[in-house]
Amino acid sequence: MPGNDVPESPFRPADDEARALARTLLAQAAFAALGVLEPETGAPMVTRIALATVPDGAPLTLISDLALHAGALRADPRCSLLVGEPGRKGDPLTHPRLTLRCRAGFAQHDDPGHAALRRHYLAQRPKAALYADFADFHFVTMRIEAGYLNAGFGRAYRLAPADILPG
Amino acid sequence: MPGNDVPESPFRPADDEARALARTLLAQAAFAALGVLEPETGAPMVTRIALATVPDGAPLTLISDLALHAGALRADPRCSLLVGEPGRKGDPLTHPRLTLRCRAGFAQHDDPGHAALRRHYLAQRPKAALYADFADFHFVTMRIEAGYLNAGFGRAYRLAPADILPG
Repeated sequence: MPGNDVPESPFRPADDEARALARTLLAQAAFAALGVLEPETGAPMVTRIALATVPDGAPLTLISDLALHAGALRADPRCSLLVGEPGRKGDPLTHPRLTLRCRAGFAQHDDPGHAALRRHYLAQRPKAALYADFADFHFVTMRIEAGYLNAGFGRAYRLAPADILPG
Repeated sequence: MPGNDVPESPFRPADDEARALARTLLAQAAFAALGVLEPETGAPMVTRIALATVPDGAPLTLISDLALHAGALRADPRCSLLVGEPGRKGDPLTHPRLTLRCRAGFAQHDDPGHAALRRHYLAQRPKAALYADFADFHFVTMRIEAGYLNAGFGRAYRLAPADILPG
């Protein structure tokens, strides 16, 4: 708008290429950076989690109650995931990555859906069978609320959940 | 303490091996996952930034005002970094990683220290010379307030800034 000082939004509208890239980044992620709020301070805290997905494409993880992020997510389920790992060569900022704003939900061991989550997770992360049934480990599903895809310099997209989940 | 229901802290005290590993992870990081607070909602948001260090070991990055995290850090400088990238093989949770709680400070182009930051950054990330002098790019230093080192399952350490910075 002429005469308007507000900078132009750097985000492009979602298109099929962006949707496909976002889904691929999430489906291929074996792990993610997880952002939570530190309960004592409200400050952000980023840790690493292993990642799988449920059949509708939503992220699924398995975390120990001893992990810092476990207490944080129980106190405030708002969280963020970053997936899409650069290789060791080249400028890491040219590699595509996906930021998700999510809400975490803990599954109890006696929840009706627990067996299905366990099956989906272990099919993708079989080594986790070593500890998946420990009493202090819980499956956590991440409900996607919004996404930001950065496909390289100058190629940023704001995505809705339906753009990211295969549905 | 017998009869106390509070779980034992999962963190070990810092030792020289943990300090050396934390310093190596930070010094070798070409990029990091950055956690900030989304200004509109206060929710955590994780994005990727390129990373270098200043001579005292503190993290240094270069960000565009167009990036989501730029506005977030200007609104609230509290942030978190995750460094230490797993390879493509093996269980990613066995790879060591370092979480930092930091406070971000923006350098203006005419700040007295700007030339030194630019020199340190470009010595480590020479390709950034293509855009380092654009008006909308700023160097941002991260003052470390606390660190959490996860050196693999069951090996977690709580670190102070002096444990991480070579000093």
